[in-house]
Amino acid sequence: MMAHHPSRVALAIPSWLNARLAALDQSVRTGDENQMEFVLDLAGENSRRGGGPFAAAIFTDAGELVAAGVNRVVPDSAPIAHAEIVAIAAAGQRLGTWNLRSVGALTLVSSTEPCAMCLGAVPWSGVRSLVIGARDADARSAGFDEGNKPDDWSDHLASLGIDVRVDVLRGAAAAVLAEYAASGGPIYNG
Amino acid sequence: MMAHHPSRVALAIPSWLNARLAALDQSVRTGDENQMEFVLDLAGENSRRGGGPFAAAIFTDAGELVAAGVNRVVPDSAPIAHAEIVAIAAAGQRLGTWNLRSVGALTLVSSTEPCAMCLGAVPWSGVRSLVIGARDADARSAGFDEGNKPDDWSDHLASLGIDVRVDVLRGAAAAVLAEYAASGGPIYNG
Repeated sequence: MMAHHPSRVALAIPSWLNARLAALDQSVRTGDENQMEFVLDLAGENSRRGGGPFAAAIFTDAGELVAAGVNRVVPDSAPIAHAEIVAIAAAGQRLGTWNLRSVGALTLVSSTEPCAMCLGAVPWSGVRSLVIGARDADARSAGFDEGNKPDDWSDHLASLGIDVRVDVLRGAAAAVLAEYAASGGPIYNG
Repeated sequence: MMAHHPSRVALAIPSWLNARLAALDQSVRTGDENQMEFVLDLAGENSRRGGGPFAAAIFTDAGELVAAGVNRVVPDSAPIAHAEIVAIAAAGQRLGTWNLRSVGALTLVSSTEPCAMCLGAVPWSGVRSLVIGARDADARSAGFDEGNKPDDWSDHLASLGIDVRVDVLRGAAAAVLAEYAASGGPIYNG
């Protein structure tokens, strides 16, 4: 006999993350490296707190932080709770829209190249730029599966008007993954 | 000034859906067509209630309903709230695991061929079978974008041991999409 059906799916923005988001709320953070530094700090903190070593955040053109997400697959029992999925949904719910394009040219900053699922989510979100830290190969080196991506994913996003910028603080981003692997963190989706 | 950061992302299992799930809880529903009939009924009901014309459900090998989801993109302000994403997360949270494979050979029944994002989610979920009603072309005919899928997605899932069965009640499934389009429902992700 299974538990009752839940009335909703809940993906947490943990309280430590919420505190960091609130602290940034009155300031701006501009530039890919500056924004990536913030995201890598979240990825490292999340992995030290029992989540996966992945984070993502969404910024406005002016550098205001709209939302962030961290990987919650294991603690939330949700195989789809990747950082990008959580960040995109959190941004939509905070702004009250399913189409982030309607509020301006937003940027999704991802600590690692998004997996096949999260790449598929990027056009649905309405973000206009995607900024990536570690490469697919760095994630695979740490033992994570990135899934079956179309070969032309980057060109395809560009064809939709989504600007893709890669290798932003790649070394530091790959180090977050390597540290997680070295610490023996669980490799789900493996 | 934006609203406060939310403490979680919430994707609803609406009360009408919860009532149907509870009603099925003491019975079983076996066979692809029988399960698809249930899912198409949910897709039609969801579109009549202001959601997208898509539904998905997860069944055990014995035909017990584990969880279901409907498209909540517009009402939940969440571009990632596709039926499959909601159903997979609901199943994980109900069963208390991020890996559905750990509880048996589960089947994901989807009213329409999953989009690029949802196809990417299938291996992460741990389901062992994917049953599809309407084709990608049927969704595109109704105006929906299905995203950029790898050409070999079906073979790739098969290579992971995930059995893919297509065209299950395809005519009825395509009719749900066509009715939605004819009624002038919003085409998000367009």
